[in-house]
Amino acid sequence: MKNFISVNDVADINALVQKAIAYKAHPLKDIALGTHKRIGLLFLNPSLRTRLSTQIAAANLGMEAIVFNMDKEGWKLELEDGAIMDGTTVEHIKDAAPILGSYFDILCVRTFPSLLNRDDDYNEVLLSRLIEYAGLPIVSLESATLHPLQSLTDIITITENFKEVRKPKIVLTWAPHIKPIPQCVSNSFAQWINAWGEADFTITHPEGYELGEQYTTGATITHNQQQALADADFVYVKNWSSYQDYGKVLTENPEWMLTNKHLSATNHAKVMHCLPVRRNVELSDEILDGPQSLVSQQGANRVWAAQAVISELLKN
Amino acid sequence: MKNFISVNDVADINALVQKAIAYKAHPLKDIALGTHKRIGLLFLNPSLRTRLSTQIAAANLGMEAIVFNMDKEGWKLELEDGAIMDGTTVEHIKDAAPILGSYFDILCVRTFPSLLNRDDDYNEVLLSRLIEYAGLPIVSLESATLHPLQSLTDIITITENFKEVRKPKIVLTWAPHIKPIPQCVSNSFAQWINAWGEADFTITHPEGYELGEQYTTGATITHNQQQALADADFVYVKNWSSYQDYGKVLTENPEWMLTNKHLSATNHAKVMHCLPVRRNVELSDEILDGPQSLVSQQGANRVWAAQAVISELLKN
Amino acid sequence: MKNFISVNDVADINALVQKAIAYKAHPLKDIALGTHKRIGLLFLNPSLRTRLSTQIAAANLGMEAIVFNMDKEGWKLELEDGAIMDGTTVEHIKDAAPILGSYFDILCVRTFPSLLNRDDDYNEVLLSRLIEYAGLPIVSLESATLHPLQSLTDIITITENFKEVRKPKIVLTWAPHIKPIPQCVSNSFAQWINAWGEADFTITHPEGYELGEQYTTGATITHNQQQALADADFVYVKNWSSYQDYGKVLTENPEWMLTNKHLSATNHAKVMHCLPVRRNVELSDEILDGPQSLVSQQGANRVWAAQAVISELLKN
Repeated sequence: MKNFISVNDVADINALVQKAIAYKAHPLKDIALGTHKRIGLLFLNPSLRTRLSTQIAAANLGMEAIVFNMDKEGWKLELEDGAIMDGTTVEHIKDAAPILGSYFDILCVRTFPSLLNRDDDYNEVLLSRLIEYAGLPIVSLESATLHPLQSLTDIITITENFKEVRKPKIVLTWAPHIKPIPQCVSNSFAQWINAWGEADFTITHPEGYELGEQYTTGATITHNQQQALADADFVYVKNWSSYQDYGKVLTENPEWMLTNKHLSATNHAKVMHCLPVRRNVELSDEILDGPQSLVSQQGANRVWAAQAVISELLKN
Repeated sequence: MKNFISVNDVADINALVQKAIAYKAHPLKDIALGTHKRIGLLFLNPSLRTRLSTQIAAANLGMEAIVFNMDKEGWKLELEDGAIMDGTTVEHIKDAAPILGSYFDILCVRTFPSLLNRDDDYNEVLLSRLIEYAGLPIVSLESATLHPLQSLTDIITITENFKEVRKPKIVLTWAPHIKPIPQCVSNSFAQWINAWGEADFTITHPEGYELGEQYTTGATITHNQQQALADADFVYVKNWSSYQDYGKVLTENPEWMLTNKHLSATNHAKVMHCLPVRRNVELSDEILDGPQSLVSQQGANRVWAAQAVISELLKN
Repeated sequence: MKNFISVNDVADINALVQKAIAYKAHPLKDIALGTHKRIGLLFLNPSLRTRLSTQIAAANLGMEAIVFNMDKEGWKLELEDGAIMDGTTVEHIKDAAPILGSYFDILCVRTFPSLLNRDDDYNEVLLSRLIEYAGLPIVSLESATLHPLQSLTDIITITENFKEVRKPKIVLTWAPHIKPIPQCVSNSFAQWINAWGEADFTITHPEGYELGEQYTTGATITHNQQQALADADFVYVKNWSSYQDYGKVLTENPEWMLTNKHLSATNHAKVMHCLPVRRNVELSDEILDGPQSLVSQQGANRVWAAQAVISELLKN
């Protein structure tokens, strides 16, 4: 693995999952691997779980982690080639990247989409420029379109909770929210579950919320949530804004909020969410406080996903 | 000790003070105690001394400390049960707490009161929810109503500066300020001095500034500052807003600002303040720059107070 | 070396440069030097390279570095003696400094000029008060008037890139910018090159941009950029606001922007800039992306400059 930007960087998903599960059992078994190695965590947007879990993962591998909140402690980066920088951007990624590359052994970065211009967001300019100019392994801590550490965590959690020989039925369901939310977590979950190939995978959402086909091809897609949920083993709940009518909120229909009533047709489904979750908007209290919720386990597993990825990058 | 929220968590104040004084003499004597243990420092409000001293205390015990400024790097937490989260709060404490609990061995948190609703503030909902849901030892780095690490520091400093066999006379005096200030430091100092039981303790303030009786019972209370100061060995200077007329500034009477003139009736009293102090508003330059001030010693002692507390929690 | 505020703190510039170059070859050779020592990095203004490079330098020497963003995580400091603190400042430097001094072994601080009042800025009150009250070695991470770690980096980079026996011709040229910029980097570069004494040094800028003579004496000064650039071996490009008409932008004349055309009269000059650089405003893309640019090397060398300085201070 050279970078960790999407599932395409992973040669063997199950091997990476097992590596993470092994770290969960023995967090410090590779503490010598990263001695005197340095990892930079560059945040262009806020983060709780991702920041902490990546710092902890790095520490478990003996690395020194340095966090940098570019939006608050730094300044605005220019991404466009040939720009005449007489506006609000203070430094070009072409100038900042090689220096960050000289300071660290691995560089992690979080950025969000604007949700204003789909082409700009889906081109992932920041990440591709970093890879081009920084000259060291880049890890996405969530980008404009994907959140691969979250998706790896999700497959780890599904693997821990499904011990049958058949394929599990996994449903990704849209949920209401009060404001426009990126498609990243949903895109990435779809991309990983499809690449994994070990599930019967259905995506359900209201009309107009179709995700990009580059991620969803392979899944069953339906606007009928109840039909989708039938016999589900795992229900992944997530809001996203429209990809077609880019960044728009088309409905806040509360019937799509997951409640115990919705779970009745499932196969005692476990319920997943990447957090933070808007209680009683996306998901009901009764589910989050009940025995079918996996959200805390997902949050805790973020450490082991990050540790497996960093470990892979260190070995190269 | 299971948590460190108030003096009620401490079985033996003097033993904890002596533990801190021993660390001051030999900061690194227990550096193996916290190896591969992790402490989280969660700030919902800004901090200078508390943040730095706690980081240093943790390092002296061999722990890894991770600081997280929730207000700036994170998002607003929901504390109310059953809330329909369609407003400004982004994550419920019930969802965030177990994950923080899984990431750390000890979790420290700073929060401030709103000074708008006394019941809300004095219920200390954030701390009690963290204790309920995070499942690990919680340390208050100042809460809505108390500041126990400061009070422990204060008793350490008093112990270092009073070598007579009799009880010292300690006076907590209100001082003017330009804006509404929490009652935390004053509540906590009163609670600790009363629980300690080794002082003749007087509290003095203008009418209307009575602190909660749950903290002050045991102290002599008077509105006559000069009378209170007579024969004092230690004068603790602090502003607070009204507890009765909650959060209000009732007077800025500059006569209450402590000057050398006020000290003349004392027993060469040492003067204490938790810092930050508004010079020439709360306390005069002549005192702060003079030989009777203990404020720098107090600030430096913050490290040893934190180290003693973390050490106690690690031993459990 | 007791503090590191300006070139005047350095007994032997070349020895310090060689120390840095030795660390570049063997970053961890003195990792035992700072064991259980603690360095504080106090930022009153934002920083990217300086913050990261100093943290890394400290880690290479085995020190624990604690970063503190005073402007965002702390509060506003009062610097004036005798101030009645009933305004926006929350803590006096006289009270904060001794406590920071008790927490750390070395204290680094970054602050910027106001560009509103020249006397205030050029008095460097914050730094001198810290030195007076904190009681430990102080390192400037850029101050109101100077940026000594940058200048040390610059001489390291020049030393690495000039192997002839004659003195190199070094030109500091003003460049356009869209807003008022401090004189720090330019003042400091001039001060260091003059103190170094191993270059033929020319400063060129439009009329009205004369830097303070306390820094420039010894250099040739001209308003004719093309004449200045003739036969230059190194061209240091930097914008600064007026020192005479303090803090003002007198011209944005784009002819002063350095392009390949400007380089034709030089001796295949290497081009330097401290970064961040406004591309196509201060310096053209063709230069920054071409073989004559040293900016990435300068940025990377920041680590070794900081490491040499911290190492010197630790030895005392």
